[in-house]
Amino acid sequence: MTDSDLQYHVDGDLVPAGEATVSVHDRGFLYGDAVVETLRAYGGEVFRWDAHADRIDASAAALSIDHDHTLAELKRRVDATLAANSLDDAGIRLSITRGSDPSSDAGIGVGASPLLDDPDPTVVVQATPLPRGGVDGDPVWDEPAALQTVKPRRIPDESVPARARTHNALDRVLARAELRVSDADEAVMLDADGHVVGGAGGPVFFLDGEALCTPSLEGPVVPGVLRAVVLDVADAEGIPVREGGFTPTDLREATEAVVATPAWGLRPVATVDGIGVGGGPATTLLRRVVDRRIERDHYTDPEPDGRNRHA
Amino acid sequence: MTDSDLQYHVDGDLVPAGEATVSVHDRGFLYGDAVVETLRAYGGEVFRWDAHADRIDASAAALSIDHDHTLAELKRRVDATLAANSLDDAGIRLSITRGSDPSSDAGIGVGASPLLDDPDPTVVVQATPLPRGGVDGDPVWDEPAALQTVKPRRIPDESVPARARTHNALDRVLARAELRVSDADEAVMLDADGHVVGGAGGPVFFLDGEALCTPSLEGPVVPGVLRAVVLDVADAEGIPVREGGFTPTDLREATEAVVATPAWGLRPVATVDGIGVGGGPATTLLRRVVDRRIERDHYTDPEPDGRNRHA
Repeated sequence: MTDSDLQYHVDGDLVPAGEATVSVHDRGFLYGDAVVETLRAYGGEVFRWDAHADRIDASAAALSIDHDHTLAELKRRVDATLAANSLDDAGIRLSITRGSDPSSDAGIGVGASPLLDDPDPTVVVQATPLPRGGVDGDPVWDEPAALQTVKPRRIPDESVPARARTHNALDRVLARAELRVSDADEAVMLDADGHVVGGAGGPVFFLDGEALCTPSLEGPVVPGVLRAVVLDVADAEGIPVREGGFTPTDLREATEAVVATPAWGLRPVATVDGIGVGGGPATTLLRRVVDRRIERDHYTDPEPDGRNRHA
Repeated sequence: MTDSDLQYHVDGDLVPAGEATVSVHDRGFLYGDAVVETLRAYGGEVFRWDAHADRIDASAAALSIDHDHTLAELKRRVDATLAANSLDDAGIRLSITRGSDPSSDAGIGVGASPLLDDPDPTVVVQATPLPRGGVDGDPVWDEPAALQTVKPRRIPDESVPARARTHNALDRVLARAELRVSDADEAVMLDADGHVVGGAGGPVFFLDGEALCTPSLEGPVVPGVLRAVVLDVADAEGIPVREGGFTPTDLREATEAVVATPAWGLRPVATVDGIGVGGGPATTLLRRVVDRRIERDHYTDPEPDGRNRHA
């Protein structure tokens, strides 16, 4: 299936992906003034929807976008998009912009927009096929990841709070652009103080020989759903967890490491800045338990009539 | 004229503003991954096009967007937009995105986009009517501006360089949103060190009793066209100029001040954080000389057949 065959959900309607557009008046386009959440569906059901719904609420609150869509309505549109495309296993991008204001000055800047007080959000749901997950799943990635620390620093909370996932992603675009030189798979970003924030596309975890370490939420770190899942699994498996401020050297000297994105899930780390790190027993256990939970929650005991499955 | 009557120039074609859209695959929408330049037309001609063209080149270079449109072609589209709308006096927003990539994963994040290496830019020109400028012009603003220093800090150069004007504007959106409380006209933004960067929409200038002061380009300050024009006029008029790092206190204690946006032009400052500042002889002179130059360059000696005028 190519994107041209897909249906997206735009402003309340299913439309062919090739005809899915937003107005150039939309503040999501003009200013990146939009909330985004990237979801993963396994076996026809969105992974951890409730946690993502909380994230959407937190992002919208941070930007003061008072979207009047209930979370149930957003879920309905996501499910309708999966159903329209007969997708069970998919990546989903859900955007809620501050809306399109044709009565405004098209962003010329005469004055503040009335939409700051009375937003009229545009909801866009995009989906793309991904492989099955769980114990019998196929990884989206081919091999463990090469990580590269890059120059662009994560936008600090004082400018745009990291708890808001938004359409302002140029720091991460510039970070990924640096990978063209090293041919690495993921960029490791630092904050203004030089502490590791994570990968450009999601969190990083590593073992320092004793504990599972990951950047704490005191820095400009996205409090993502997969981050919380991994920390929860580590806790359940008796792996000590250390959230804190870590340097690139800490990461390079790790005994094992794993990086995550919504599409990849958990991907072992082969190298950091060319230095071998590799996987190991702790990250293998984490990946296995996460896969087992996905298998249990998404692929076992489907309804006899298959009503939770889209294909 | 309302926006619904306007024509915009989108990806090579003039279209009614109400039908002007970009694909949801466009990276300008997905990530704010786009260059923008805000222009002002007076008497049918873009103010300082050559300087804006240099800015567009600098912004595109900072984002590594190798748009293959010549600056002459961009100018042609801007002029075509003015002509299609019979606009002589207008605000114009010119966007160049990294393009729409329907073969990509719609921003789900499986991997870096091929567009990072081989961009396919989308060019959008939006225009809106503004009053005449120059000596006989009508200001867009009603009265001198109330400024308010706000909490959101300007995104630092280490994250996204300020020399790139882009569709990532959430720091300024959040800054303007704070004005709802104070009912001020413009937000004064600071950098990470607490130094004044400027207004959310353009530069700020003030008199410290001796010199015309403005934040230096060493901070995350947009090297805008109007900023350069004002410094040039000050130099020509024998007003000493001081570019440096200034605190909000310096600005509050100014003897006179002026703030600029592409639409406003130069607007005197009435108050900073509620403290009276007001205009004065230096800023009055600056505004008068800028207006005279606009009058001379845009409104005198039009071609007899009016070919430089659109209405």
